[in-house]
Amino acid sequence: MSNNNHFVVIMAGGVGSRFWPVSRTNFPKQFIDILGTGKTLIQQTFERFKEICPVDNIFIVTNESYREIVKEQLSDIKNENILGEPVMRNTAPCIAYACHKIAKKNPKASIVVAPSDHLILQEENFKQIIRESIELTAENPFLITLGIVPSRPDTGYGYIQHTNKSIENTFFKVKTFTEKPDLELAKTFLTSGDFLWNAGIFVWNAPTILNAFHKYLPEMNEIFTEGKIFYNTSKETDFIKTAYMRCKNISIDYGVMEKADNVYVRPSDFGWSDLGTWASVYEVKQEKDYVGNVVIDTDKVMMYDSANCIVRTDANKLVILQGLDGYIIVESDDVLMICKKSEEQEIKQIVADVKQNYGEKYL
Amino acid sequence: MSNNNHFVVIMAGGVGSRFWPVSRTNFPKQFIDILGTGKTLIQQTFERFKEICPVDNIFIVTNESYREIVKEQLSDIKNENILGEPVMRNTAPCIAYACHKIAKKNPKASIVVAPSDHLILQEENFKQIIRESIELTAENPFLITLGIVPSRPDTGYGYIQHTNKSIENTFFKVKTFTEKPDLELAKTFLTSGDFLWNAGIFVWNAPTILNAFHKYLPEMNEIFTEGKIFYNTSKETDFIKTAYMRCKNISIDYGVMEKADNVYVRPSDFGWSDLGTWASVYEVKQEKDYVGNVVIDTDKVMMYDSANCIVRTDANKLVILQGLDGYIIVESDDVLMICKKSEEQEIKQIVADVKQNYGEKYL
Repeated sequence: MSNNNHFVVIMAGGVGSRFWPVSRTNFPKQFIDILGTGKTLIQQTFERFKEICPVDNIFIVTNESYREIVKEQLSDIKNENILGEPVMRNTAPCIAYACHKIAKKNPKASIVVAPSDHLILQEENFKQIIRESIELTAENPFLITLGIVPSRPDTGYGYIQHTNKSIENTFFKVKTFTEKPDLELAKTFLTSGDFLWNAGIFVWNAPTILNAFHKYLPEMNEIFTEGKIFYNTSKETDFIKTAYMRCKNISIDYGVMEKADNVYVRPSDFGWSDLGTWASVYEVKQEKDYVGNVVIDTDKVMMYDSANCIVRTDANKLVILQGLDGYIIVESDDVLMICKKSEEQEIKQIVADVKQNYGEKYL
Repeated sequence: MSNNNHFVVIMAGGVGSRFWPVSRTNFPKQFIDILGTGKTLIQQTFERFKEICPVDNIFIVTNESYREIVKEQLSDIKNENILGEPVMRNTAPCIAYACHKIAKKNPKASIVVAPSDHLILQEENFKQIIRESIELTAENPFLITLGIVPSRPDTGYGYIQHTNKSIENTFFKVKTFTEKPDLELAKTFLTSGDFLWNAGIFVWNAPTILNAFHKYLPEMNEIFTEGKIFYNTSKETDFIKTAYMRCKNISIDYGVMEKADNVYVRPSDFGWSDLGTWASVYEVKQEKDYVGNVVIDTDKVMMYDSANCIVRTDANKLVILQGLDGYIIVESDDVLMICKKSEEQEIKQIVADVKQNYGEKYL
């Protein structure tokens, strides 16, 4: 099934704080088994793509400081397949770097780009869609993005609106990318039927994406084109250090996808979640007790008159809850946080306050 | 101020579970700094009595298994002043043992008996009342008990009803001892004005208490009378082991005080609490934030939209509370418990369930 012309880029540079205190700056979400499945999110993502292409064709782009964690968690990855970013510059430089590097190896490469920290429940369905997308882009200069069929007017996602122009009623020409909407607008999106959630999963061939960078982000493309002689040599790391400093911080959506006129979206439904918040973990977790409590990573939780809570602590801790409804209870090492699930947007402010009060100590 | 004829018996045998998981079977409440003052309750009690009598006249009666903790916490106590109980037999055997032993040292001893784990805020007032009581009992065959002037219809305490017959309008002849009342009855007690809280603090001279044991608990008195030749010798411990096995489990209130006709109560008001529950700790703790939160033993608690909580965790833990009103949040080693303050009577059942589920591991 896997093919030597197929390449996968897994983006693993995030330092998201929404799962603090379980995720920390030096150990972010993608390296955590946030659902308590026995595998971390990046491990699940990596496994998923092993059937799409050979392991040697899978590249992880991550902050240089996470290189050792990646090696530890993905035991069969080669060091040279880990692309270390010296600084965070959002998704456009990350994708430009990886695609230029892959293009040097194989100028006709088909490339899948995906985040490392999303949940996909229906793996076979997902892989089938990826294969179809690769097949289409192998022979066509399209930028494919996967759009999730929305199940609710979620205000936490960006949306992709498509036209009726399609390829075999499967891939639809994109009309607009939208920012996160407010609730009213999100409801309108759902009613209209031509809006999909932006999952940040892309498929294209090497010439098409490099051409798009050349057209819409010419300065950035110039930088990574200069590197061609260094990719896959001992001088790559030094080159990249300088290159990243010269790049502006911009997303692939904003820098390329929203501007290009050859973007197609594949409406998809494979049990996707970006696992952006504790509440989303609560939602996707199938194992709930009969009053809706979710317990992760420990079997030592005793509940009294408590419902709709999500509990995650160190496995050796005995946790007793009495009289709590709809709370997140998270303990990790030196931090205990109890927060109403409905108020979890506060966590961002909480993390900011922790930084203000205690510096980096708990981040 | 202190006097060689004065003796103090501090009862420290309790294994109460109401402060679980901070108090454990192998480290009960009296050995804990439950209020976060810098001193454990038994240390505070010991300090309080140092002005009443010489340190060598203060005896701690405790379970033999707590001997090392007592030595550690009360550095200037002699090993021979720690009376180790081989088994728990309630307060009557404990007091019989201590008073018989003291009587052998000093047949005319004045003896104060007090629990080790109560709070007394007004120390000078307390000591003054103790001195007056010692003075009265030095020359009179009275059994004195201190009765706390009640400030609310508490259903957690026993009550002492007194008559109008008094000694200088200060010590009143006791009419009855009552069990913990229900709320209606407690309100009636408060209205009547002649009911006081039973604090379990006693003052008497040696002949009077031994005479009372002889009269009301003759079998138990016989057992400890047999020991006279062994007290304060190397054979005391072995004797006590056997003696305790022969004693019935009975309180001094039930066995002696309720039956004797020479009991006087001293109405007292010295900022007393038996610190029986987390809610009582919450009540007596003066330092509350402006929305009524109490934090013990750590300064690393951040509160958001939270009020009327009591938090006690290991000092090195950062605790974040969001959206909690009126909760007890306690963490100690391997246990985290969150419980509504208004439902803290549940803790007894919780501890029973923990024992059922996990055996002694967390107790």
